[in-house]
Amino acid sequence: MTPSQYTPEEPISSIATALAPAALGIVRVSGKGCIELVSKVFSRPKALLEAPGNTLVYGWIQSPVVECPQSGRIETTKIDEVMLAVYRAPKSFTGEDMVEIFCHGGPAVVMAVQNLMLKSGFRQANRGEYTFRAFINGKTDLTRAEAVKEIIDSHTDASRSHAAGRLAGGLFEEIDSIKKLIVDTLAAIEVEIEYPEDEETIADSFDRADIETAASRLQALADSWRGEKLYQDGARVVLAGRTNAGKSSLFNAILKEERAIVSDIEGTTRDWLESWASINGIPVRLFDTAGLRETSDVIEAQGVEISRSLVHDADVVLYLVDGTQGANDEDRTFIENCKEPLIVVYTKMDKKLVVECPQGGRIETTAADATVVSIRPSAYSTTGRPDIRISSKTGAGLSDLFKAITDILTADLGLSGAGGTTERTQAGLGSARQKEAVSAALESVRHALVSADDNYTLDAVVQDLEDALDSLGEVTGDVTPDDVLGSIFANFCVGK
Amino acid sequence: MTPSQYTPEEPISSIATALAPAALGIVRVSGKGCIELVSKVFSRPKALLEAPGNTLVYGWIQSPVVECPQSGRIETTKIDEVMLAVYRAPKSFTGEDMVEIFCHGGPAVVMAVQNLMLKSGFRQANRGEYTFRAFINGKTDLTRAEAVKEIIDSHTDASRSHAAGRLAGGLFEEIDSIKKLIVDTLAAIEVEIEYPEDEETIADSFDRADIETAASRLQALADSWRGEKLYQDGARVVLAGRTNAGKSSLFNAILKEERAIVSDIEGTTRDWLESWASINGIPVRLFDTAGLRETSDVIEAQGVEISRSLVHDADVVLYLVDGTQGANDEDRTFIENCKEPLIVVYTKMDKKLVVECPQGGRIETTAADATVVSIRPSAYSTTGRPDIRISSKTGAGLSDLFKAITDILTADLGLSGAGGTTERTQAGLGSARQKEAVSAALESVRHALVSADDNYTLDAVVQDLEDALDSLGEVTGDVTPDDVLGSIFANFCVGK
Repeated sequence: MTPSQYTPEEPISSIATALAPAALGIVRVSGKGCIELVSKVFSRPKALLEAPGNTLVYGWIQSPVVECPQSGRIETTKIDEVMLAVYRAPKSFTGEDMVEIFCHGGPAVVMAVQNLMLKSGFRQANRGEYTFRAFINGKTDLTRAEAVKEIIDSHTDASRSHAAGRLAGGLFEEIDSIKKLIVDTLAAIEVEIEYPEDEETIADSFDRADIETAASRLQALADSWRGEKLYQDGARVVLAGRTNAGKSSLFNAILKEERAIVSDIEGTTRDWLESWASINGIPVRLFDTAGLRETSDVIEAQGVEISRSLVHDADVVLYLVDGTQGANDEDRTFIENCKEPLIVVYTKMDKKLVVECPQGGRIETTAADATVVSIRPSAYSTTGRPDIRISSKTGAGLSDLFKAITDILTADLGLSGAGGTTERTQAGLGSARQKEAVSAALESVRHALVSADDNYTLDAVVQDLEDALDSLGEVTGDVTPDDVLGSIFANFCVGK
Repeated sequence: MTPSQYTPEEPISSIATALAPAALGIVRVSGKGCIELVSKVFSRPKALLEAPGNTLVYGWIQSPVVECPQSGRIETTKIDEVMLAVYRAPKSFTGEDMVEIFCHGGPAVVMAVQNLMLKSGFRQANRGEYTFRAFINGKTDLTRAEAVKEIIDSHTDASRSHAAGRLAGGLFEEIDSIKKLIVDTLAAIEVEIEYPEDEETIADSFDRADIETAASRLQALADSWRGEKLYQDGARVVLAGRTNAGKSSLFNAILKEERAIVSDIEGTTRDWLESWASINGIPVRLFDTAGLRETSDVIEAQGVEISRSLVHDADVVLYLVDGTQGANDEDRTFIENCKEPLIVVYTKMDKKLVVECPQGGRIETTAADATVVSIRPSAYSTTGRPDIRISSKTGAGLSDLFKAITDILTADLGLSGAGGTTERTQAGLGSARQKEAVSAALESVRHALVSADDNYTLDAVVQDLEDALDSLGEVTGDVTPDDVLGSIFANFCVGK
């Protein structure tokens, strides 16, 4: 998909809601003449044609009126009873004339309406084509456009909140404000070049303060990406342990408490093996290696191989030990050989235990009360992480486990351990593309400072600062090559 | 759910679109004061409060404004950038004030907006509650209300088209017109009772023509239900046959050509075993008994048991025979013992075959050209159905197979074999409830005719006709007991 395939103003149409039974569905159209085109398949064409922008018109979507040559009867087929939202350029999402058709939410209805549009002069919209038009018509910049995709794909409310900040222009404003620092400095340097007061070295004629501020703010933005990425892409947490260690119980207990909002409708997870969960707002893809052994789809050897690779790719491994039994050699071998970060989790803390007293006789207790010998060299692992004791049945210890997972995932990210469920007040980056451009800008700005230190000419500093501005222009889309634009919008969903 | 749980005017809110990533999502609210409630969590409250009905207002959904006691700063959290569709009573779907919030289509966003509404004075709407309010506020009758549910649940475009006819009032008008025939007759009888011209028998004073017309139109409506039900519920078609008869290939070939619009998102089908397909517009739930043997989830014995019950419950059984091999005793036994309707399908008609010539030597031919000995007593089965020859690979014969299936499913339904993909011009019933009430009305009308024949008094005829009117009132909702209403709307989806 290249931007040349997006032909501005051409009437386009697409389904904008998920194709599953629901109360309402939306087909949206945009482009030159789109209101007239819709009016030809609408029961009240005059009302639609005369509707001012930002108004709603009631009626039926129907096949075009045909006069029967024999009977003279007017024939038409009713498709669905709808409300039309009418937008007139430039006051619309795309900046063009637009109509949103609010129909009933049955897949058959929504598809019938869309198919009629395709027969009525509309082209099927490409991915992200509405947002692309909004961008080229100056209705949005690239940081907001990317936030639209991000907010749609959010797996948790915390992820949504981060995206909403960017959609509201938080990142755009930060970039703009950094640009201003650079532009102001450039203006001062230009004056210096035009009207030099003396022939002194550059170091004297160059006010570093603004550029140093710009550098540190760019650094903060660049640093933000790892944390933002965590909220976008999520982390992989793998449950390992011997058979009956309680893996499936913990898997289900986590899902029950913290199932993520998007439980992966697109079918990229397998129920028996993995699911999205929200752990303190962080989207976590949870893998239960128990699923691998218990399904006979996969023969045992393959299951072990997959388990191994899941553990290898994990961001956190939870190694479960049946708390009523304690660890054995198999457990110890796994833990010693497993890569960090790993959390040892003792399970079944609610279970009744009969313990032999050293003084003779037996007492009944629970796994939680009984002393469980740690299988690590000390009660703390080499990373200083304590083992966690839980009961998947009662939920005891789960919040400790969640905190331990969150601490690992957010370590060195400059996020609070609480996991950022509150809205960020600082701007953060929303895509790898932005990170790349901001890093380039940061490098140019630093180079400018070094050039000044090394007493290069002012022209060299100017070049560096202009490079930085170009890179920042790429972030917001003032200066963005066509192929970059193409790849940005091709990742959008259809209808957006 | 009883109607008493629907409290009219109370502000209600619910998500109205499917909860899956998409460009747009909708949260809809209705009830007294709902516009004010939304304005408290909207970035432009004044614009919203002043908006006329049927207009759109741009802004942000955000948490309520809170003033920080320390800093005096106004704090608010942005949720999503939205368009609000504003409706003012009585010009709305429910007849109450309404707002539809068009937000981004990510599940996290849509849920965040809905959760904010629930915190802001709205109650979660019950199933069908919007439509219920539309009904009690006189915005729709029961035939149209039921058509709303039906159109959402439509599995094929033909199903949708039938529902659209009812949504447009086709059934309502037919019932209304039948009522008029009865009411007119009743009026004439009342005159006769008040001012009898003579003491003649009833037969003379009672014009049968209108009531006979009413009876025959009610009969046509009652007869329509079986056909309509087929388009709503669909039929079960089961693929049986020996291993390697080509079941999975045919299953996939049918899905490739005719996968139904709703491939069952709610998870009631299993991929490997069943899927919805559209066969000439008829929704068909297709079962592949091959899936039962090929998955090791189900042990062989259970698989056979399930196959048997699938075949037992089938509306049509397709028995597949490998056309390159011909039938053997196992096939013959199955076919002789299987219940009708059964279609024998010879598969793999594209396959090359080497045939021994009676004159000696061999010739290469295809399964289609070679003579395949029929396994039925004659080329035609006892029901007169010919065997079908297909190639799942090339698609040859599939349209013959679809026609054969359609013919069986629509036999005696008074539908054309083509399957009604065009819109019905005659009114048809949309639910079992309607069928029951129409049948009761028909019985009362017939009883009136019999009473007249038997020279009962006019009062007896009046009673019958009034009973018929009551039954017809139940269809449209003029006269409908509370519990019936409750069960109608409880079947709706939330948000409708």
